[in-house]
Amino acid sequence: MTGPQVTLTTDFGSGSPYVAALRGVLLSVNPGARIVDLTHELPPQGVREAAFFLTQTVPYYAPGALHVVVVDPGVGTERAVLYIEAGRHAVVAPDNGCWTPLAEALGGPRRVVRLTERRYWRPGVSDTFHGRDIFAPVAGWLTRGLEPDLLGPRADEWLRVALPSPVQAGDEVRGEVLFVDRFGNLITNIPRNLVDGEGAGPGARVLLGDRAIEKRVRAYGEAPVGSLVWLISSAGTLEIAVNAGSAAVLTGAGVGTPVTVRRPGR
Amino acid sequence: MTGPQVTLTTDFGSGSPYVAALRGVLLSVNPGARIVDLTHELPPQGVREAAFFLTQTVPYYAPGALHVVVVDPGVGTERAVLYIEAGRHAVVAPDNGCWTPLAEALGGPRRVVRLTERRYWRPGVSDTFHGRDIFAPVAGWLTRGLEPDLLGPRADEWLRVALPSPVQAGDEVRGEVLFVDRFGNLITNIPRNLVDGEGAGPGARVLLGDRAIEKRVRAYGEAPVGSLVWLISSAGTLEIAVNAGSAAVLTGAGVGTPVTVRRPGR
Amino acid sequence: MTGPQVTLTTDFGSGSPYVAALRGVLLSVNPGARIVDLTHELPPQGVREAAFFLTQTVPYYAPGALHVVVVDPGVGTERAVLYIEAGRHAVVAPDNGCWTPLAEALGGPRRVVRLTERRYWRPGVSDTFHGRDIFAPVAGWLTRGLEPDLLGPRADEWLRVALPSPVQAGDEVRGEVLFVDRFGNLITNIPRNLVDGEGAGPGARVLLGDRAIEKRVRAYGEAPVGSLVWLISSAGTLEIAVNAGSAAVLTGAGVGTPVTVRRPGR
Repeated sequence: MTGPQVTLTTDFGSGSPYVAALRGVLLSVNPGARIVDLTHELPPQGVREAAFFLTQTVPYYAPGALHVVVVDPGVGTERAVLYIEAGRHAVVAPDNGCWTPLAEALGGPRRVVRLTERRYWRPGVSDTFHGRDIFAPVAGWLTRGLEPDLLGPRADEWLRVALPSPVQAGDEVRGEVLFVDRFGNLITNIPRNLVDGEGAGPGARVLLGDRAIEKRVRAYGEAPVGSLVWLISSAGTLEIAVNAGSAAVLTGAGVGTPVTVRRPGR
Repeated sequence: MTGPQVTLTTDFGSGSPYVAALRGVLLSVNPGARIVDLTHELPPQGVREAAFFLTQTVPYYAPGALHVVVVDPGVGTERAVLYIEAGRHAVVAPDNGCWTPLAEALGGPRRVVRLTERRYWRPGVSDTFHGRDIFAPVAGWLTRGLEPDLLGPRADEWLRVALPSPVQAGDEVRGEVLFVDRFGNLITNIPRNLVDGEGAGPGARVLLGDRAIEKRVRAYGEAPVGSLVWLISSAGTLEIAVNAGSAAVLTGAGVGTPVTVRRPGR
Repeated sequence: MTGPQVTLTTDFGSGSPYVAALRGVLLSVNPGARIVDLTHELPPQGVREAAFFLTQTVPYYAPGALHVVVVDPGVGTERAVLYIEAGRHAVVAPDNGCWTPLAEALGGPRRVVRLTERRYWRPGVSDTFHGRDIFAPVAGWLTRGLEPDLLGPRADEWLRVALPSPVQAGDEVRGEVLFVDRFGNLITNIPRNLVDGEGAGPGARVLLGDRAIEKRVRAYGEAPVGSLVWLISSAGTLEIAVNAGSAAVLTGAGVGTPVTVRRPGR
């Protein structure tokens, strides 16, 4: 028999007592919960980074998992805490937009509840740690089967965060680096179909800032060691990489660096 | 059905094979144990940091969890390994005082056992890794229901670590920074009641070293971005913070920096 | 009731969406799997470091656990993905040799299967993330009881990685540092029996590079604080350490630094 899965995504740092306290509260409310860490290493107050991270991870979980997101610079202010259903996924997150790109990718939210019922919170809620005092106990109750509408009223307004979208102009697509992984690979927001899609000739040119990336490969290991190449990432987008090296270190590029694709038509 | 919870708190680093080996031994003795990591990122040999960390985390766990602490600079020497019950919590820790502030916060230890029964250890105990060779198998046996008194004789002496206490002198309270979190927030040892308590006028002044912290807020987000403020932390103590920034970076303060509260009486 | 254990060893970094996605896919195939992280902090593309790490951790796990290793610089190329049985342990790993020192320590592989059956993979396998698209679903199926031979044909050739072995010449043993832990301890590849073994006189001399390590201790705490000593590590090999300090920082030594033992015969 397997307990309900609860994933955790925070910016607390895995050295922090905050993660440990949050887990303790959750397990006190529901000792049968199975906690799965997505990450605790998001940049501090990194709402946009959380938004991207969730789009890359939550869709791989089975229906029924509850995804708890605590990247919450507005803790203790009037910002709401929300329960969201989108696609077959459920999320508890602050109303700062971190969950909206995920929900949009899943077809939009089907139900959004504003958490107001204090009976499901810890008594004596602090002003600086709602992860422990609200998110964790609510996650415990939800995974014990609590009907979400008991948590508070439906919400019909919320903050949205938009991840930057690529722009098409003629044969050119302009995007940017969305994420740099631990290997120094530069993951962009330009989807495969805007590189390879209908009407594109064979010779797409990729520029990172002003620098032309000459070679395309299918897999990292096809590139000469140390050379800068582009390929299609595991997210299905344009990626710039160095085989056995770091494209971020080699080029100095980072999140936000412009990336251009020039696709001479057929 | 849920297995017994065992939490782990170490200074091994999550990149270390030591954590992985410890988990393997524990799960070999009790495959049903549910391991919950509190942290593996305590500073190397950070007995005092462990002591603070445990006070901030263990109380949030439900009765019945076993808390294993391996911050153990004296490994292999004559220092004892102890099993401790305090409040409704149970701990296995080296006899270096890391557990005593927690136990005192819980009303003092009710039972302390010195681990001497080698039948519950791995054969061929090393001199450098009792976490794997003693703590882990003992945790496995305890969570299988072993009576703790079978582990060895009762102990009535042990080392104590004292976390620094604030000192009151007239209208002044002198404390210090106990912990700096990943956001750069400075968590002090001055409890809320010494800031806000009986007899205090409305205008408490807070100094970090010699620097006056002018503004008090309830939540981070109430402060202007980048300004230094004080508030009550999620631990219930005085905290110095910067909204959307790091108080540690802005001020250069760290663990041990003096903090003074001046409370003009009514 | 306890689910089957699956351990994960990667170089993704715990801040990475890759770990979180991999876990999601695995749990989607087998919601009952119990994931145990060995580490996600191996050096990027650190095949040799993975090889050492596995020898220090997998043997502590009980039979029946499945060990998934994703340190995979050749992802997307023609390198195979393998299922291996050795001793009473099972491993899924890329064919880059990361698993061979472990298998040799366990008496050699008993069965090696080359993963070719795409029905057990995610549809639309990427060229850059086989951890998510092949390793994770295969691990899910294996822990649900799938017969490993259904995954593909037996393999009888594979790449091997050799960890450096110590060399004996007369009374001298020449080895090197294999691993530096978070405490700065230098773990070498010289086994205890080549230090203490038959024919050795009492006065073995240890050199780190050209620097003589004068003092031997049994446990760290026996050494004067700050002094450089040698001892037998928890891996059963020669280790060079500083009590309450870092031998790596004090000496500048690292992985690959030569270590010599001179054993005057009796």
